Amino acid sequence: MLSKIMKPKSIAVIGASTKEHTIGSDIMKRLQEYKFKGSIYPVNPKGGIIEGLQAYTNVLEIPGEVDLAIIVVNAKFVLDTIDQCHQKGIKGLCVITAGFKETGAQGAELEKSLLSKVKEYGMRCVGPNCLGVVNTLPEVSMDGCFAESLPERGHIGFVSQSGALGGGILNILKDLNLGFAQFISIGNQADVNAETALEYWENEDDVQQILLYMESIQNPANFRKLASRISKKKPILALKAGRSAAGASAASSHTGSLAGADKAANALLNQSGVIREYSLKNLFATAKVFANCPIPKGDRVAIITNSGGPGIMATDAVCEYGMQMAKITDATKEKLRSFLPSAASVKNPIDMIASAPIEHYKQTLETVIADDNVDMIMVIYLPFLGLKDIDVARAVMEIKAQYPHKPVIGVFMTKSEFFTKLSDMDVNMPFFMYAEEAADGFNRLNQQRLWMNRPEGKIPTYNVDRAKAESIMKQSISEGRAQLTTRESIDVLDAYGIRVCKSGFATNIDEVVEVGNRIGYPVVMKMTSKTTSHKTDVGGVRVNIQSEEQLRNEYNDLIAKLTEKGLIDGLEGVIIQEMVKGNREMVCGIATDPQYGPMMMFGLGGVFIEVMKDVTFRIAPLSDVDASEMIKSVKAYKLLEGARGTTPAQMEQIQETLLRLSQLVSDYPFIDELDINPLLISEKTGEGIAVDGRIKVRLEEAAEKLDACTCGACAGCCK
Amino acid sequence: MLSKIMKPKSIAVIGASTKEHTIGSDIMKRLQEYKFKGSIYPVNPKGGIIEGLQAYTNVLEIPGEVDLAIIVVNAKFVLDTIDQCHQKGIKGLCVITAGFKETGAQGAELEKSLLSKVKEYGMRCVGPNCLGVVNTLPEVSMDGCFAESLPERGHIGFVSQSGALGGGILNILKDLNLGFAQFISIGNQADVNAETALEYWENEDDVQQILLYMESIQNPANFRKLASRISKKKPILALKAGRSAAGASAASSHTGSLAGADKAANALLNQSGVIREYSLKNLFATAKVFANCPIPKGDRVAIITNSGGPGIMATDAVCEYGMQMAKITDATKEKLRSFLPSAASVKNPIDMIASAPIEHYKQTLETVIADDNVDMIMVIYLPFLGLKDIDVARAVMEIKAQYPHKPVIGVFMTKSEFFTKLSDMDVNMPFFMYAEEAADGFNRLNQQRLWMNRPEGKIPTYNVDRAKAESIMKQSISEGRAQLTTRESIDVLDAYGIRVCKSGFATNIDEVVEVGNRIGYPVVMKMTSKTTSHKTDVGGVRVNIQSEEQLRNEYNDLIAKLTEKGLIDGLEGVIIQEMVKGNREMVCGIATDPQYGPMMMFGLGGVFIEVMKDVTFRIAPLSDVDASEMIKSVKAYKLLEGARGTTPAQMEQIQETLLRLSQLVSDYPFIDELDINPLLISEKTGEGIAVDGRIKVRLEEAAEKLDACTCGACAGCCK
Repeated sequence: MLSKIMKPKSIAVIGASTKEHTIGSDIMKRLQEYKFKGSIYPVNPKGGIIEGLQAYTNVLEIPGEVDLAIIVVNAKFVLDTIDQCHQKGIKGLCVITAGFKETGAQGAELEKSLLSKVKEYGMRCVGPNCLGVVNTLPEVSMDGCFAESLPERGHIGFVSQSGALGGGILNILKDLNLGFAQFISIGNQADVNAETALEYWENEDDVQQILLYMESIQNPANFRKLASRISKKKPILALKAGRSAAGASAASSHTGSLAGADKAANALLNQSGVIREYSLKNLFATAKVFANCPIPKGDRVAIITNSGGPGIMATDAVCEYGMQMAKITDATKEKLRSFLPSAASVKNPIDMIASAPIEHYKQTLETVIADDNVDMIMVIYLPFLGLKDIDVARAVMEIKAQYPHKPVIGVFMTKSEFFTKLSDMDVNMPFFMYAEEAADGFNRLNQQRLWMNRPEGKIPTYNVDRAKAESIMKQSISEGRAQLTTRESIDVLDAYGIRVCKSGFATNIDEVVEVGNRIGYPVVMKMTSKTTSHKTDVGGVRVNIQSEEQLRNEYNDLIAKLTEKGLIDGLEGVIIQEMVKGNREMVCGIATDPQYGPMMMFGLGGVFIEVMKDVTFRIAPLSDVDASEMIKSVKAYKLLEGARGTTPAQMEQIQETLLRLSQLVSDYPFIDELDINPLLISEKTGEGIAVDGRIKVRLEEAAEKLDACTCGACAGCCK
Repeated sequence: MLSKIMKPKSIAVIGASTKEHTIGSDIMKRLQEYKFKGSIYPVNPKGGIIEGLQAYTNVLEIPGEVDLAIIVVNAKFVLDTIDQCHQKGIKGLCVITAGFKETGAQGAELEKSLLSKVKEYGMRCVGPNCLGVVNTLPEVSMDGCFAESLPERGHIGFVSQSGALGGGILNILKDLNLGFAQFISIGNQADVNAETALEYWENEDDVQQILLYMESIQNPANFRKLASRISKKKPILALKAGRSAAGASAASSHTGSLAGADKAANALLNQSGVIREYSLKNLFATAKVFANCPIPKGDRVAIITNSGGPGIMATDAVCEYGMQMAKITDATKEKLRSFLPSAASVKNPIDMIASAPIEHYKQTLETVIADDNVDMIMVIYLPFLGLKDIDVARAVMEIKAQYPHKPVIGVFMTKSEFFTKLSDMDVNMPFFMYAEEAADGFNRLNQQRLWMNRPEGKIPTYNVDRAKAESIMKQSISEGRAQLTTRESIDVLDAYGIRVCKSGFATNIDEVVEVGNRIGYPVVMKMTSKTTSHKTDVGGVRVNIQSEEQLRNEYNDLIAKLTEKGLIDGLEGVIIQEMVKGNREMVCGIATDPQYGPMMMFGLGGVFIEVMKDVTFRIAPLSDVDASEMIKSVKAYKLLEGARGTTPAQMEQIQETLLRLSQLVSDYPFIDELDINPLLISEKTGEGIAVDGRIKVRLEEAAEKLDACTCGACAGCCK
């Protein structure tokens, strides 16, 4: 797919130059300096010798086959150059040249033409406006980029959307002794983007983890599909910058107003198993951990230290992530006691005390790493007179080498020289200065473990009454109403099998009884009148009606009272409603992110929604696992479980509610906003019941999809 | 106070030794190597020459005066040594020797004897079991400690409770180019502790910020008094390790169960204006910022960058801390436009684009720093071919030097060599690798600014009915009840002027009317009966009674109905209660931390307490500012403000409620737990009304303080 670009046998550098400090010169130098294993063909209209190689005046003159053309000519020559590349049979392009979309409308036009040529010619193209591509695999050895540093060999696949930042990152990676396998600076990502890279690296064994620096995600659905599959095989870490609030301010629904500000990106990355980092620092720290640690079997951490204070801090940090302090076995303790001094503590954290010689580090690690109750180990070293940090590190690595399947992280609170020394060595475990960094690392390993063990999940399809839902929506659309009425909204939900608060309207005793019997008792009866607005004052609301008989009595009594007071004329009828009792109000709904599409929300409802913001988001469609995770991830989950003697909520039924909503918005993507607030948890049965609902559609889109008219003047008859 | 120890004119090293790699040898070497400005007298029973100096066989033989004795002899000789020091007239001790409290009961005994000698002789003593003391002030130049590195000169005062960690930290500080003024390793803190150091450094101009590494706080009240005063003059940063949950698991109240796990330490540090860090890494980063930045005038941040990506990330980080992105003036923008290329962005973040030469860094910073709308500036540099990072840094520092009153932080995403180079230079601003670190730094500066501007606050004293409160508590105590009844609890609160839900008990129509009139309408009337438990079923609960007349009618009706149903015999009477309507339930209370004493809680009550944990804590007694901050710091504050059309709560009255509670527990420190749950916010008036309350005392302590008997068999008559 990208092999012509990432593993070329021959490269033409079009725009190669002899002029120092130009990209055309730098790229040539880099390819040679890094000892590209294939042929390099400089192309320059003036010909001559460039970096010791004969330059061709035109790509067509090159005698052999060319896999990849790295293009650095002025933007105005790029399209012609691509034509020539096509004539030459080149399939891989890397357009470093700037002056496209990033410069405005004219550049965007040029980029469009570039893309259509690339598509037409069946090429793949990295860029334009990028830093280049790198592959450190020894049989390729391609440094086709102009970052400051030569690449360090390793197993990271790295995609950067920002060229400048990408370059900066390459420098830092080298500095951190973090090597990479392949680097793609996607630039304006006209053709190749993060998703292309993900897909290409899925089966590249040389790439063992993938790092993404992104400012936007081009095709969220495709990204999700690819990332959630690939992250099960190798960790994907992402730094997503630009947490914009676009779209949120305009939204009028609860779901909408809580949705903005980066919630969608977060939901997407979460559902895709991508580990999101919020700073480059953390991104690199995590990458360092994945580069040097296997995925653990569990979350039980043992800490070995030669000083109490850092042991305490490490314990604090491990516990704060919700990981467990390993309960080491009695056998292990006994063994430790056999060689550690009596002042040492053999309980986790294991404090060997300040006098611990290197031999104790070795013996203790060897003993603890063999304990089946231990999944991960932190080894802390504080310098004391007499011991050399690098010797301790070597000893620890020696033992670690015998146990490749358990992660070990070193915390060496020593001078930075130590880390400089390390960067010139072959290490088999990560080392940090501080315990908190090691705990962060364990947490990420554990997160990846949980993700890899997470069940696949299914997106179920329920039998629903689409015809009914559509006819309701069509009616609203035909009247030019983007916002459905409460009644309509509830009816659409009902058509989709969502448990709604049952109700009906009646105008006489027979209807009243019929509705009451249909709903089931207890019910509430509320009068609706054109003349009496204060229903309660005239006894117009009757609650807790337990039977048909009581319903008859209450209705007759109401009619009598109203007649007596001379208010009977205004009466339109009564609404009979299921009486739902519950003190737990949840909320669920749909919001539409302008970029990521429909997004589901679930959380604590009622007056607390905006205050507590105890809600969670996922991109639709939801799998059953997604829905179940949503429910469990809010704090209010404890309320659902039945805290303080309340009836436990029917989790399966609430999960189904979310899945049905997800199906609804998948069937009708023009649903812009949907709120069920409250989704009342019945105190009696634990069911989640939609007591109130509102649905808003994007009118034009909905009309088109449903083939409805929006004239507002007809009842849908125009169509 | 500590000047004999920290600024001695002469030091006796008792236990000085010629034997390599012993503390007695190392300390001697250090004192000489660091060129102590006073006299050094080695003391060793064998005499001889130690490190080129004539050793004295006994401290009494020393000819001149001695200010400080550094004691490194075996623990069993320490007491005698102190006697001799006293004879010699020495007032300052630093006991490095280990083998005291840290080793068990015998050692603790020894330490007790040590302390009583120190007190008796009017000495001050650092240690025992410590690393030593350091003062880098050139006219002192004392390195009386055995850490690996020689101290770096600077203006940090640093207290470490852990010797080993302290040593490790000194190494790192040197590595980070963070110098310090004074260092005290307090060890077992038999005499000198963090509080002593704080007080001593209050007026030491050479100490410009104070760093504490603590595992416990010895005297929380004294710490609070000192720290809250001194932190107004210079920043105090603390790393408090060991976030124990002691005491929490045993507590039975809401307040108690939420209180544990480090909440008390957090509250104390917060109220004292101490900046708490959770990792050494952050502690040092913050120290670096305070060492090189003035306190800003406001929280408006400008960002100058040569690359878009880091600018976005920096903006994200600044906004996440709730600081403002500065709105730079039009004049500034115009000036920037006059020299920056057209592709540059002159809106904050100011993107000078990749081509920016050093001159643009200088001009841009000069322009932006002069803008009155800007309080703090982040300067970001990403390396591009041609520019040297260190040159850019120099240029930026040159401009910064002209504006000493505005903090500027550099973010240089370059190789670590750059930072190594910096550590050999004189810098006038902090540099970090990542934008997030700079944002952290600005946040800390802003936090210190807010603290310094925070009003002093007063602890008010209200007129309360102590006699009544005491008689109620005495009654309960005399019956052997640690837990007061609800009625008693409410009455104690009432005696302290806390607005409680008014109620009364009545057994006949006259009493009913009397109680109703006293409470004021509307009221609720509830029957209490020995035979009828389902009050509602027999019409025994009457709500919303609006007047005396209605109350009479309802009572007569109740009596008639009960008589009719043959239930009148069981009737004990009726409870008349104020009818309070409100849908906002708050909670407040008192919990007792075993170490920190009484602690106040405030937050969201009702069913949400344990689930949402939206509560905050402060150590009692509260000042008015503390109480006001408590109310504003919970998320539910928005509910109190009157979200969604509800009546705004009476903030002053709620604040007073907290202050009166604080007074209650200050008056009666034996109150172990107190819950007001709910503190219902009246929908009508916005008042906070204590609807339910419970108070628990520590029985023995309470009995002693109140001079009450706890026999349980009398009615207080024993006393």
